[in-house]
Amino acid sequence: MVTIQDIADKLGISKGTVSKAINGAPDISETLQKQILETAVEMGYTKLRRSKGTARKLCILAQIDNIEYTQPHHFAYDIVMGFRQMAEPAGFDVDVIPVNDKTQRASSYEVFMLQNHYLGAFAIGFALNDPWMQDFQTSHTPVILYDNYIPANPATAYVGVDNNEGMELAVSHLKELGHKKIGYLSSALGSHIMQVRHKAFFNALRQCGLKAEPQQAGSSYYVSQCMERHLPRLLKLGVTALVCSHDQMANAAIIQCTELGYSVPKDISVIGFDDLAICPYTSPPLTTVRQNRTQLGKSGYYALNSLLNDIPISTLLLHTELIVRGSTAPPPKK
Amino acid sequence: MVTIQDIADKLGISKGTVSKAINGAPDISETLQKQILETAVEMGYTKLRRSKGTARKLCILAQIDNIEYTQPHHFAYDIVMGFRQMAEPAGFDVDVIPVNDKTQRASSYEVFMLQNHYLGAFAIGFALNDPWMQDFQTSHTPVILYDNYIPANPATAYVGVDNNEGMELAVSHLKELGHKKIGYLSSALGSHIMQVRHKAFFNALRQCGLKAEPQQAGSSYYVSQCMERHLPRLLKLGVTALVCSHDQMANAAIIQCTELGYSVPKDISVIGFDDLAICPYTSPPLTTVRQNRTQLGKSGYYALNSLLNDIPISTLLLHTELIVRGSTAPPPKK
Repeated sequence: MVTIQDIADKLGISKGTVSKAINGAPDISETLQKQILETAVEMGYTKLRRSKGTARKLCILAQIDNIEYTQPHHFAYDIVMGFRQMAEPAGFDVDVIPVNDKTQRASSYEVFMLQNHYLGAFAIGFALNDPWMQDFQTSHTPVILYDNYIPANPATAYVGVDNNEGMELAVSHLKELGHKKIGYLSSALGSHIMQVRHKAFFNALRQCGLKAEPQQAGSSYYVSQCMERHLPRLLKLGVTALVCSHDQMANAAIIQCTELGYSVPKDISVIGFDDLAICPYTSPPLTTVRQNRTQLGKSGYYALNSLLNDIPISTLLLHTELIVRGSTAPPPKK
Repeated sequence: MVTIQDIADKLGISKGTVSKAINGAPDISETLQKQILETAVEMGYTKLRRSKGTARKLCILAQIDNIEYTQPHHFAYDIVMGFRQMAEPAGFDVDVIPVNDKTQRASSYEVFMLQNHYLGAFAIGFALNDPWMQDFQTSHTPVILYDNYIPANPATAYVGVDNNEGMELAVSHLKELGHKKIGYLSSALGSHIMQVRHKAFFNALRQCGLKAEPQQAGSSYYVSQCMERHLPRLLKLGVTALVCSHDQMANAAIIQCTELGYSVPKDISVIGFDDLAICPYTSPPLTTVRQNRTQLGKSGYYALNSLLNDIPISTLLLHTELIVRGSTAPPPKK
């Protein structure tokens, strides 16, 4: 176990200076503080080891380029709320920290955590190319990743829904209605979760004994791009139903299909994923796969608290639920 | 929600008779009781719905054809203990029920649970062809499956270790030592966990950029069969290391290699999985992938209690840990 003395010895400075740097005392230069914290992190020192008696602080790191959480209708609002509903009564202070590429480049994940006295983090909205995703691979300060998986670092865990189950529910529902050729529209595959859902969709097709060829799927970074490039192509291919990687994509698909003269669900069925607040109000109301975001937030806290107590959780997935509304129906008769 | 009245109406008998059957009153024939309980289950009635005020009973269902738990050196001893360590202080009575094929054929899972007033179960040691594995697909009474996964039934959850991570730890360790051709010995692939580990082994080979061909693996129902049929074949194939699906297999492999004139680890390295109590005492001591069985038992309780409280856990996996002992070393120089 690394002590403040060890850090002082390594840098050839006094224990008091190290302590000041770690506690953010004002009479120490920013450069020196950064150097000390970086050395502390390199040596494997974490706040966790000196948490007794001090305030117990956790943070939610929200990658604001990818996720919104401040308003009740935002995707991550309930996730943040669920986490806080568990953590705060348990005696933790929880800060929600908006981060982006710039924040992440300014200091490493562990230096950031040490500097701000956080014992652990719940990271939401991170894409595979986010700088801290590299840090998470070797960090010692516990981090729970919503919809991201870091292999073989015991200080990390993955929390999300069972996407295989979700896609199976969506595809089986369409199969039962009589659909045989189903398309898939997705955001860019640059995030773990989009890769997982893409794979889960094709697994579900195979499981249901349906046609599963690469051209049945299309993905783009922007929803509008996906509508322009892939939707007409899939319609031409003869799909009678579309599964979408998330509800916004499904909502756009309904609108675009209607504009192209296709009636939803008479000519084509559409299914989303997430069950956002908008789903009952799209036209027609959207059939979708629900992920219980409050419970995801609570599970994020459970996993983080487990890691803080040496319960080595790696993965915690929740069941999904198919919510059938008006956007799915049997395929048109030929 | 199904009530006792609903069941009485369906069968055309009195509510009192149904109540007697459910509470196991002695003045009702066994045949009638069974008929009533089966109807109750068909209609979706579970003990859960009337649990207030009555004793809160859980059970651990141990498939004794596949798993041992009564002695401290048995594989499942710590799993059972971990579960009880969490459940009993929380106010539950926990019974450990040995089951086999015969028990399962005698009554369905849900009738059994109803008959014995259990709110939920933790099922350990079940193989894919166990009769109750069918029941679990549609049951309403919560069941947590150790090392088994039932898709799309919200009353079930899967608890186990992160086998992908475990195999990656084992294979990376061997790669770092310089091994290029690695074999795999496994129990029969008739259980979910053996299928998962088999797949995880090949994934790990590919991830490490190593040769991954089907003939590098061999599986048999009996360990002795595996030693006779597959071990000599793999040695002839030129593997310099063997990963085994579990420690008993690895222990047998060490003994068999030695008998065949190969020195472990000088000529061939061997890795197990589980970290049983025997591992430090094999000759040489066995390098293995540890699964923390006490924490698995505790996680089993956590998952079961979550389902009882409508927290829809689907999957809970724990981190593994590589325990390096004497059975692994660099490959022999040619």
